[in-house]
Amino acid sequence: MLQYALLHLMGYNLGIEDLKQFRQWGSKCPGHPENFLTEGVEVTTGPLGQGIANAVGIAAAEAHLAARFNKADAKLVDHYTYCIMGDGCNMEGISNEAASLAGHWGLGKLICLYDDNRISIDGHTDISFTEDVSARYEALGWHVQHVQDGNHDLEGMKNAIAKAKSVTDKPSLIKVSTLIGYGSPNKADSHDVHGAPLGKDETAATREQLKWPYKEFEVPQEAYEEFGAVAKRGAEAKAAYIKAAETYKSKYPEEWKEYNSIITGELPAGWEKSLPKFTPEDKGLATRLHSQTMLNALAPVIPGLIGGSADLAPSNMTLMKMFGDFQKTSYAERNMRFGVREHAMGAIANGIALYAPGFIPYTATFFIFSDYMHNAMRMSALSEAGVIYVMTHDSIGLGEDGPTHQPIEHLSSFRAMPNMLTMRPGDGNETAGCYAAAVKNANAQNKEGIKRPSTLVFSRQGMPNMSTTSIEGTMKGAYIVHGGDAKPDVIIMATGSELPNAVEAAKKLEGDGKKVRVVSMPCWELFEEQPESYRNSVLPPDVKARVSIEAGSTFGWHKWVGDKGVAIGIDEFGASAPGPTLYEKFGITTDAVVAAAKKSMA
Amino acid sequence: MLQYALLHLMGYNLGIEDLKQFRQWGSKCPGHPENFLTEGVEVTTGPLGQGIANAVGIAAAEAHLAARFNKADAKLVDHYTYCIMGDGCNMEGISNEAASLAGHWGLGKLICLYDDNRISIDGHTDISFTEDVSARYEALGWHVQHVQDGNHDLEGMKNAIAKAKSVTDKPSLIKVSTLIGYGSPNKADSHDVHGAPLGKDETAATREQLKWPYKEFEVPQEAYEEFGAVAKRGAEAKAAYIKAAETYKSKYPEEWKEYNSIITGELPAGWEKSLPKFTPEDKGLATRLHSQTMLNALAPVIPGLIGGSADLAPSNMTLMKMFGDFQKTSYAERNMRFGVREHAMGAIANGIALYAPGFIPYTATFFIFSDYMHNAMRMSALSEAGVIYVMTHDSIGLGEDGPTHQPIEHLSSFRAMPNMLTMRPGDGNETAGCYAAAVKNANAQNKEGIKRPSTLVFSRQGMPNMSTTSIEGTMKGAYIVHGGDAKPDVIIMATGSELPNAVEAAKKLEGDGKKVRVVSMPCWELFEEQPESYRNSVLPPDVKARVSIEAGSTFGWHKWVGDKGVAIGIDEFGASAPGPTLYEKFGITTDAVVAAAKKSMA
Repeated sequence: MLQYALLHLMGYNLGIEDLKQFRQWGSKCPGHPENFLTEGVEVTTGPLGQGIANAVGIAAAEAHLAARFNKADAKLVDHYTYCIMGDGCNMEGISNEAASLAGHWGLGKLICLYDDNRISIDGHTDISFTEDVSARYEALGWHVQHVQDGNHDLEGMKNAIAKAKSVTDKPSLIKVSTLIGYGSPNKADSHDVHGAPLGKDETAATREQLKWPYKEFEVPQEAYEEFGAVAKRGAEAKAAYIKAAETYKSKYPEEWKEYNSIITGELPAGWEKSLPKFTPEDKGLATRLHSQTMLNALAPVIPGLIGGSADLAPSNMTLMKMFGDFQKTSYAERNMRFGVREHAMGAIANGIALYAPGFIPYTATFFIFSDYMHNAMRMSALSEAGVIYVMTHDSIGLGEDGPTHQPIEHLSSFRAMPNMLTMRPGDGNETAGCYAAAVKNANAQNKEGIKRPSTLVFSRQGMPNMSTTSIEGTMKGAYIVHGGDAKPDVIIMATGSELPNAVEAAKKLEGDGKKVRVVSMPCWELFEEQPESYRNSVLPPDVKARVSIEAGSTFGWHKWVGDKGVAIGIDEFGASAPGPTLYEKFGITTDAVVAAAKKSMA
Repeated sequence: MLQYALLHLMGYNLGIEDLKQFRQWGSKCPGHPENFLTEGVEVTTGPLGQGIANAVGIAAAEAHLAARFNKADAKLVDHYTYCIMGDGCNMEGISNEAASLAGHWGLGKLICLYDDNRISIDGHTDISFTEDVSARYEALGWHVQHVQDGNHDLEGMKNAIAKAKSVTDKPSLIKVSTLIGYGSPNKADSHDVHGAPLGKDETAATREQLKWPYKEFEVPQEAYEEFGAVAKRGAEAKAAYIKAAETYKSKYPEEWKEYNSIITGELPAGWEKSLPKFTPEDKGLATRLHSQTMLNALAPVIPGLIGGSADLAPSNMTLMKMFGDFQKTSYAERNMRFGVREHAMGAIANGIALYAPGFIPYTATFFIFSDYMHNAMRMSALSEAGVIYVMTHDSIGLGEDGPTHQPIEHLSSFRAMPNMLTMRPGDGNETAGCYAAAVKNANAQNKEGIKRPSTLVFSRQGMPNMSTTSIEGTMKGAYIVHGGDAKPDVIIMATGSELPNAVEAAKKLEGDGKKVRVVSMPCWELFEEQPESYRNSVLPPDVKARVSIEAGSTFGWHKWVGDKGVAIGIDEFGASAPGPTLYEKFGITTDAVVAAAKKSMA
């Protein structure tokens, strides 16, 4: 509630009536702040630890833009990033990951206020959280201060912030010891005030103790004036920025164009043309290699493309070869080295994406390690952050690393997530199509006009380029790649590395005189958004003989194969062995498709 | 590979021929060690950071058993827990969570060796990991030492371990600086030796540099003798333990019974009888409250039930009222306070579960925060750790906290995970049935004889107790709760808090003269394991008019509703408002079921 009250006082578009609708249907004041609902809310928070990692992303974005665009005689970007965190945030592993990176990157303009009230939902932090947080942040390379009395010592707070600003090579943590529920005579310093209202009597007692004579939702004029001064400072800063931007634009028109694309989200015209096309004559490759080609094709034409891997760059194939590493001595570069910190990586990407609409951050890891960053990915989807998740090593096809590294249920898991596009391309053209769709959606180029993140799922192993795959077909989510428009006896559906099995099976069945259609389904969500006429033209409702093949869980496929169909997949954990052996042992084969097709037609 | 070589040398059931099968189909030496495949492997690792958290669980289990059972004149449990971790482990947030808890708990017998080789897959750790790890562990309350030359200074290692043992009130970190690929003249100290073999030439060069005259897979007798001495020490320790156990058993027969149940996994006879039954006269409650009843019913009868919540005990309702908190001064107690550390909580529970077959650890958080612990939960399933995951606040029904807190795709996500049972009960009897099934499966009481973890999903809001629900039906996964055996015109399927909607809709449709069956489906996985005859008796294949209702994603439901059926659910994010309002707005209503049933019957 406090955040909404502050936004109201500072003149954001949030009236007293809005505040009264706290946590009600259609309100601008939901239970946890949502960036897409409320003016002035920069990121959606609620799940603990996401906010500090978002802040690291925002501070990194600021450092990047400043280093890339500011000129000695024309400064565009120059601001601090503030973040308020609690005990819970500091217990979550994601916050340590993010803070470790912030320290490594030396993000001197990131200032975090740690509300050390020593109360969480279970009670006093004594029962589970007795580490020395300040010493930990020092070990992570932060500048650390302590304001002992956060309830009264405003001068101390001001001084600490001034000092934090003066330290330019380290992020700053200001531990502020406070009393939770300050002013409440009976509930202060207890978990009773953590998530529940004070109640009528205690509210009255608190008003009395604080000597607060105003009614509910009555704001004294003084308060408006005090906060109005803050708003005025903001307006002045904005005016100064606009003036500086004008100067910059006239002095550095080329740089301005790139900067403006990032700030406005307007992508340079014709960016899609950079994506290459492939024919069967082009060497068959793993889609992770095609992914690298696409990133390196897009990087020079999309100014806001920035990102990297969680210590798997040589496996994920995610380095943009024309750029160097984003490091404390080279913030202008665009390859980010996240270390083995998947969860923070996702949330940092969310911060970058929400910093400016033209940023399209990408992150990368093995698909299995999406398990480490699930909440950050969901927050991308929920908060409409256009992040591209590059996920390689997408199935048992990765082979020897074994079941701890082999995704099974992961495609199902992300297909079920609202507002997340899950794509699994089958060759070069489809990889290009997936990137085209991912960039468009990261840029809100879709029917709803909202940004959507994408999870792009790539193989470790190679497969051939097909003559019938296309960017256009891929962007429709599913399309016919074999058998043409003629009404088939059976439809075989496949994604990714199993597309060749589907086509081979079709050819075998055709040898037996059957009419077979193969449908490639790289993105279910995009297919579901197509007009019914298109969907029915690809999957005619009266063709009930259907087979699907995918080296992952069959969970969810029954929607497409229907009552008479057969879903081929793997509903158990994988094993450690060469990839081709695993395909045989788990029955992900052309022969299995042929047998299933016969069964489904019978 | 090193771990398998050590197990071989120490006399475990792993021959030279097994070693040669490294990473091959059916091998006992998979790419990452799996506890269920290889004798001597205690936990499955591979995903970074899981191992140290498992070790914290193992050390906690040891501390617990020692405090609970050891007597001044009869000691049963007394050992150290060793863990080796690398740079990657220390970058992952989960390791900080686990280490923070280990420090808080003062687990003095936990000794971690940190292989500080400064190389990860992306290259030198300089590019992303420059924090002071030792200082961080000190801040977390650990005793920290440094062995500068881990490649040669064996005396230093021995001394450091001795010193670590002498510090009994803090866990110990021994940072051991090493050279990765030691002995390889051209590849040492580079990421080329991280995951790939040296290659023929470099192997030859390494043999030469190390002056190693033996052939491939040839082990000098000296080595067997050296390691054989270790095995002999182990055998002596085991003999001493057996003798001590005999003494203990005769002196303390009552305590022995409890201890023996934990060590052997034999549950006390009749434990199921502790689970209460309910009738419609019993007050309708939220299933999270029924869950508390079940935990408190089981706690006194199952000696190995131990667990707690990630700082949400008052919301998850997970305190065992007859026990105190597991703390450094009270290791014998059984309520664990994990703090806001979901990921470590899951992995610690895995460590406890794998410590002894009779431990049944449970963990708790809001269902949405399963997103923070996904990999640990998957590791439970993969490594056959019988953990019970208590997940409350299971849908939009939680109301005002809003979409960051409202699960949508989560049921789908866990239903798709192999070897994980996902259960969502609809009242008191079904909650009892879910606990019965969860305990049985945690105890390997199933057809396969393997342990399976369970994700139990409970509501925040209340619902009535039904007259037709039962423990037995619930344990079959799905069963008829309304309409009896007569062939119905339409089948309505539901889980959890939507069961009342299904029954109300049935009554309305019956008013129109329709025959309606309501099937409660608390656990799909258990239902799928039933004989076909049972499955067909519950869901007759020729009844195509079907409706499902569940306040979550419809993803996966098409398998049950079929081509003619309708799945009612929520395939978008929730919102912040009172729960009943959300049910109306998102169309999770009795009327929606009635309309869908009519449509499906048409």
